[in-house]
Order: sequence, then C-alpha cells, then structure tokens
Amino acid sequence: MIERIRRATAPGRGVRLGIGDDCAWVYHSTGSSLITADLLIEGVHFNLKWTSLFALGYKSLAVNLSDIAAMGGVPAYAILSLGIPPRLDSKHIDEFYRGFNRLAKNCGVALVGGDTNLAESLIISVCVIGHPPARPVGRKGAKAGDDIYVTGTLGDSALGLELLRKRLPSARQGAIAQLLARHRQPTPRLAAGSFLAKENLATAMIDISDGLLQDLSHVCEASNIGAIIWNERLPLSRAYRTMVGSDRTSYALSGGEDYELLFCARARKRARLESLPARTEVKITRIGRCVAARRGISVLDSSGKPLALQSKGHDHFKKQ
Amino acid sequence: MIERIRRATAPGRGVRLGIGDDCAWVYHSTGSSLITADLLIEGVHFNLKWTSLFALGYKSLAVNLSDIAAMGGVPAYAILSLGIPPRLDSKHIDEFYRGFNRLAKNCGVALVGGDTNLAESLIISVCVIGHPPARPVGRKGAKAGDDIYVTGTLGDSALGLELLRKRLPSARQGAIAQLLARHRQPTPRLAAGSFLAKENLATAMIDISDGLLQDLSHVCEASNIGAIIWNERLPLSRAYRTMVGSDRTSYALSGGEDYELLFCARARKRARLESLPARTEVKITRIGRCVAARRGISVLDSSGKPLALQSKGHDHFKKQ
Repeated sequence: MIERIRRATAPGRGVRLGIGDDCAWVYHSTGSSLITADLLIEGVHFNLKWTSLFALGYKSLAVNLSDIAAMGGVPAYAILSLGIPPRLDSKHIDEFYRGFNRLAKNCGVALVGGDTNLAESLIISVCVIGHPPARPVGRKGAKAGDDIYVTGTLGDSALGLELLRKRLPSARQGAIAQLLARHRQPTPRLAAGSFLAKENLATAMIDISDGLLQDLSHVCEASNIGAIIWNERLPLSRAYRTMVGSDRTSYALSGGEDYELLFCARARKRARLESLPARTEVKITRIGRCVAARRGISVLDSSGKPLALQSKGHDHFKKQ
Repeated sequence: MIERIRRATAPGRGVRLGIGDDCAWVYHSTGSSLITADLLIEGVHFNLKWTSLFALGYKSLAVNLSDIAAMGGVPAYAILSLGIPPRLDSKHIDEFYRGFNRLAKNCGVALVGGDTNLAESLIISVCVIGHPPARPVGRKGAKAGDDIYVTGTLGDSALGLELLRKRLPSARQGAIAQLLARHRQPTPRLAAGSFLAKENLATAMIDISDGLLQDLSHVCEASNIGAIIWNERLPLSRAYRTMVGSDRTSYALSGGEDYELLFCARARKRARLESLPARTEVKITRIGRCVAARRGISVLDSSGKPLALQSKGHDHFKKQ
C-alpha cells in the first residue's frame, strides 16, 4: 500500500526524504513554518453516497490549504493519514490519492508522509506545513471602524449539500452542477490570502468553514470587536440566486464549508482593495464594518433593521 | 473545548502562534524539519477497557516521538486531532491531555494545534515536527558486514498486552506491572537516537513498532541487505524471563510496540558502541549481523541452526 502511494506521488521541491521512512525530512525557505491539521470522519463530515473518492481526496487537502491561505501563507508539505474500512479496495484508495495529488500538484504541495490503517469507517487526517509571509495574519488585529470583506460568493456549498440530501430536481441542472462543484471541490484562496498578507492589507483574517457568522464570531472574540453585516451586500452566485433567490440569505450567513476568506481592513485601504481582483484571482466584496465589542454581531436588512438570527453556523459537536 | 485545551497546554519555545488560530506558526533552529504522523483508532490500536485515557494520551505522543528518535532528531512541535465519541465527557478528555502533555513537557515538545470532532469511536491523529541532526539516519545505508543492535529489551509490550487480554494471574504482580507499564507508556529513545546520529555511529535506524523481524525487514529492503539474528542474544527483561522464560523468544522477535531502536553500525565501531550506555540512557545490545540480500533474514539458535519463523510481526491490514 505504502509503495503504491509512494509511486503515485510526485517528489516535491525541498523534500530530502519523503514517503517510506520513519519521518519525512523537508527544507524551509525561512526559519519558521505554518502548521495546520484537519480530521475528517465518514458519517460526521462526509457521506460516500454523495461524494466520489476523487472529490474527497481533493477536498481533504483543500480544507487545509484554506487554513494556510487564511494566514497569508504558501503551502509546502502535506502529511496524510488514512483509516480505511475493508469495503474500500485499492482502486477506491487510488481514486482518493488521485484527487489529493491533483490539488497538491496545482498548489505546489508535496505529500511527504502519513500513516495507513484498517478502520471501521473512512478516517482522513491531513496536516499541512507552509511558509509564512513576513507577518502572518491571525484573527486578532481587527479594530472598530475596520471594513469587513469576503472573497468569492457565500452559501453555495451549503446549498449544494442541501440539494444532495434532498435528491436533485430535474430542472436547473447547470445551477445545481455549479453548487455541487462548490461543495465537493472548493478552491482554497491561496493567491488572495498571500497577496493580502504580503501587502499588509488585512488586519485579521479567517477562512469560512463553519459559516460566515460563526467564523466572524471567532474574529470578533480574538480581536475584541463587534460587527455589522449588510445583508444585501452578501455576494451570492448566480446559481444561488437561481435556486433560492437573493432574499433567502441563510445559506450565505450560516451555511458551512464556503472556504472563502473573511478579512478586516482599515477603511483607508478601501480604494486599494476595490481595485484588487486581478491580483487575488477572485473578487472581493465589502460586506460590513467592525464596531465596538459591546454591540455584538448584527446583520442589517436594507432598511437598516437587524435580522433575527437563529443559528450561528455549524458546530462539530452538535448532535446531527 | 479548544479553550480548555489551550489553557491546559504550556506555551512552548519557538511558538509564535499556537492553539486557537487557523495555523500554528513556529520557529526552526535550522532550515529543515522532520515530520511524522500516526493515526490511532479505538478497536484497532487500543481498547479503553485495558488502558486509561492518561496512558493513551501519553502513548499517542510516545509512538510519534519514537519515529523522531529513529531519525536521530529532536522533537519540537505536536499537532493533535481527536475524534471524540459522545460517551466520553470532558473529564476523560482532560485525562487524555494530561497524559499527552506530561510526556510533551518531559521531552520539550509544544502542542501547537489540531482539530476536535464528534466521532463514533475515539480517533487520535498526531503529527510531530522535529529538528533533524546534521545527517538524519534513514533505513537505507546498512551494508553486509555491519553489526545489528537494539536498545533496551524486546517483547515486553506484546507480553503486557497478552496478559491484559487473558486477565491477570494473581501471582507475579511485580513482573506484570512492569510489562503493563512497558505496553501502556513506552519510552521513546530520544537520547539514544540523537546521540547515535550526532556521532555518525548508525548506518541505518528504525524504531520497532511492528515487531523486531518486521521492522528489520524494512531496513533490509531499503538497504538491500539480508540479516542474521542470534536468538540467544535478544535482550529480555527480568519480567519477561519471569513470565515466559528465556527460551520463548516469539514476543521479542515478533511482538509489536516495543518502541526500541534497531540500528546497524560498521563493525569497527563495536568497541565505541559497547561503552555507550551512559550517553544513551539505555543499554544497547548487539543481536546480529548484516549479510548479503540473497540470504534473507534468519534467526539462529545457540547451535547455529535457523529457527522456523511463523509470523514476521504485526500487520495493520491483517484481519484481527
């Protein structure tokens, strides 16, 4: 198995010793590293009825690269550990690695090691190590008065998952396919994150994995601020608008797994940020403003009235 | 949960940003790193009937440190991801972290991040990053004519597990306690590994996790050699000899989870290696010799006759 994996994996730059020894031995461009990890469990995070193993391999790396993007870093090395149930054979596992390696190659990431074991359900544990920018962007650092931005569009992934759960209607295949793709193979916003960090444009940044409001609350806590979000400014894809209309923003506010970046920036950088898309490979949208911590987080409708919010997003410990 | 973990964890040296952001940000003493990962799954690798959560936390880090030791490195940072079943409450999880952090502190390792999720059974995924010596010792590099050594004693852990499975007899409590301790809280041989690498004494090295013969076969494959092991030279603990006698070496040959180091060295280093124990904090024993690859691996009895070998060790993919 390990030999199969080794042969299917391109040797990466800076890898002195890769798959097949006790440890990987890798080089760094600087004397410091970013490290992130995600654990994905069948039945909790994914359902093999609704995803291919290729897409799952792709996504299990993507969610980690998204964390590196959120610090403004450049990913370099990945460690992948799998718990494999007996019902999956080596073809399935090859498919998984094909998806993983596809994204790894696109993003210049070298798979350098891991562990494989027998398990009752599929377990995927990924650790990614990256090169930090001169000043990594954390969650702390936003101030009242800062603008709040997001990359891309919100809610597509959650809506895609909903469509999968409900079976697909036969009409609107184009919109559905787009939403499913966003759910299955999200794009980590590496160019945007790296650019924002390098140019010192973001005061705080996070990737949206648990839903906009939930992840915004992490930034607010860490930075000790509150936030106002303008409901009508939320960037919705055409597919989103086709399927549920632009009035129903609940998927965009609280749906998980967008893997877009949420960041804060000083108001004086506004002109600069609005001319950016070419450099970040994705559009960015100003959706709100940081306020004093005691004002909490509120979402305002077009008349300036706060919406009643029900759920703050996805909680991994909530009973499903 | 994350906040509880953060508070229970000592901030480490070189950690610029630890638990609680998208990534950890850490410093390196050199421009390169060793990386290793292990995935432990309830029902496959451990049984909560036979182990405390403290011991499990300790061991889940120990097995990774053992991989760092096997390259001659010094461990620095750990990432811990947990899948937690609902039947475990926060007291159990605190116990786990207490065990993990106890060993981390003893070995100068900083826990810098990870992921926590709901799961059906307990899943433990650990990644450790360490500083390599000038020349990390891999599995490749042994030559025919080299001596073969191991640290410590062999088979204690496998024998401990056997005793757990069969219920404990009431006599010989002292010996049993020692074997159980070896099974539950193995000692990663960091000082020995690091010393052997620094002094250029080992031509190839591996830690014994799947049993002596199984791990020896990895070194033989990577180095393209065969090996002769002298059965009567296998280092057996007093507890081992008390429980099964020194004739039955099957636990020492094929039992898993010793977490001792197996290494090869040029014959001219023999005098040097035999005077080492003070520097390596553990005794080392010469148990065999590297031979040409075509001779395979054989274990010789005291009259020089090869033993008939049944199993090469523990295979994680064998049906249990």
